[in-house]
Amino acid sequence: MNATRHSVAVIGLGSMGMGAARSCIRAGLSTYGVDINSNALQSLREAGAKGVAQDCADFASALDSVLLLVVNAEQCRKILFGNGLAEQLRSGTAVMVSATMSVEDAKDIASCLQEKQLIVLDAPVSGGAAKAEMGEMTVMAAGSDEAFEKLIPVLDATASSVYRIGTEIGMGATVKIIHQLLAGVHIAVGAEAMAMAAKAGISLDMMYEVVTNAAGTSWMFENRMKHVVDGDYTPRSMVDIFVKDMGLVTDAAQSLKFPLYLGSAAYQMFTAASNDGYGQEDDSAVIKIFRGVDLPGKVG
Amino acid sequence: MNATRHSVAVIGLGSMGMGAARSCIRAGLSTYGVDINSNALQSLREAGAKGVAQDCADFASALDSVLLLVVNAEQCRKILFGNGLAEQLRSGTAVMVSATMSVEDAKDIASCLQEKQLIVLDAPVSGGAAKAEMGEMTVMAAGSDEAFEKLIPVLDATASSVYRIGTEIGMGATVKIIHQLLAGVHIAVGAEAMAMAAKAGISLDMMYEVVTNAAGTSWMFENRMKHVVDGDYTPRSMVDIFVKDMGLVTDAAQSLKFPLYLGSAAYQMFTAASNDGYGQEDDSAVIKIFRGVDLPGKVG
Repeated sequence: MNATRHSVAVIGLGSMGMGAARSCIRAGLSTYGVDINSNALQSLREAGAKGVAQDCADFASALDSVLLLVVNAEQCRKILFGNGLAEQLRSGTAVMVSATMSVEDAKDIASCLQEKQLIVLDAPVSGGAAKAEMGEMTVMAAGSDEAFEKLIPVLDATASSVYRIGTEIGMGATVKIIHQLLAGVHIAVGAEAMAMAAKAGISLDMMYEVVTNAAGTSWMFENRMKHVVDGDYTPRSMVDIFVKDMGLVTDAAQSLKFPLYLGSAAYQMFTAASNDGYGQEDDSAVIKIFRGVDLPGKVG
Repeated sequence: MNATRHSVAVIGLGSMGMGAARSCIRAGLSTYGVDINSNALQSLREAGAKGVAQDCADFASALDSVLLLVVNAEQCRKILFGNGLAEQLRSGTAVMVSATMSVEDAKDIASCLQEKQLIVLDAPVSGGAAKAEMGEMTVMAAGSDEAFEKLIPVLDATASSVYRIGTEIGMGATVKIIHQLLAGVHIAVGAEAMAMAAKAGISLDMMYEVVTNAAGTSWMFENRMKHVVDGDYTPRSMVDIFVKDMGLVTDAAQSLKFPLYLGSAAYQMFTAASNDGYGQEDDSAVIKIFRGVDLPGKVG
């Protein structure tokens, strides 16, 4: 038990951030929540947050750590440098940067933070909203021993697996990008297979049952193709998130001079889905690029 | 308990067939094994087979059922019609056709068997050698109620999940082909991701650990990328099997007029691997199409 409680601000209370923030509260950390969405703030306040606000100005100097769970590098920069958070934090505060971003952005943001005597962990996450809610995210992190040590209370509260990829900032980002290559292709090929089954006159309930009990299954197939079977495209994670992430995969492959046979095809599929108007729907809506196929409608 | 024991011949004692045949023996069926490989025959005899041979001539008339676990339609035709098995079986014998093949081949073979008063189940399988060994294959089957009923002893002995896709011959083949689209793309994108990680200087042990504990995992990633991590390309299932299966996927998509973004890219990758000389290696050897990448070598 710590004599003084660790104070953390979770910035970005979306599907992952909200779960992570609640997990910090449950673990007994002094938890602050930051988002522009006032409903999210209200919900976290009711869950026992020490404070909630649209920015960190009022409590930045009291923080031991910051967990950035926003969507991309641009949002990280806006919060840290545009809104001045990096200036408000005490020197030695640990910043866990968990947005999915390019290696270059991860390095650039880290170096700006280090100039201000802040400690940085390049720490993308995976696992989905349900895992975040249970404090069981997977963290793929790179940074100094000091960064890992300072963030122990936050990592213990929010993650069931913490992988120390290395000490060099950017290695966490790289592993996450390669992970997203797999995740994106698995969603897209799930859609391709289910649309093909529909076109062949196979019941999608049956196809889903068979695949999830056979060697052709994947975590994403099980999770996302259930939405297709249910005809429910309420966004848990959106098509446009995968347009962004597959774009990062493509950029990374380009700078490595690495041929991306499947990642590039999946990127085109998500881009087509967004272009067709499905960008804000659940990422399983990538299946809607296949026309002339009868898909299940939403029940009830 | 049956008063008379059900007699089954398992034809094709490869990784799946051997497991299925042993499972039939364990379940108390009078089990015959057929293969051209005499080591496989010897091994099944030691496991308690009632008889083993390179063809069924000596025991065909004693059989209640035949389980065909060979590689493709061509081998099925050769055994059934070229070698005359269909002529030797008693009328009413049930033939479970479990090779992966096109809808057209499944229908054509079934109709030739039905002309000879044989009962047919269009019944591709999945699950891998380990599941077959435990009598826990997944069967995706189409056929008449009579076919399912006659094959109950064999299905009970060899499968943990039997999906009745429909009554129309060819629907089992279709579901298996769509399943292989997923399986093939999952192996190929696993290879793409692991090769990209290697090129980016990420340890493949670490990458494997992270992915298998995160949302980017798949059954095939877990199973096949372990071979890459171990540098062990001993064929459990070969690259050339996926050249064949992705070819069937492509043909099926063509006849459905269905666009195959990811399946076609994966097909090219397996074809390139075979063309590069890796056709008889484990299907995870598709990763060898990525040159200039340091992959783990075999330990020991």
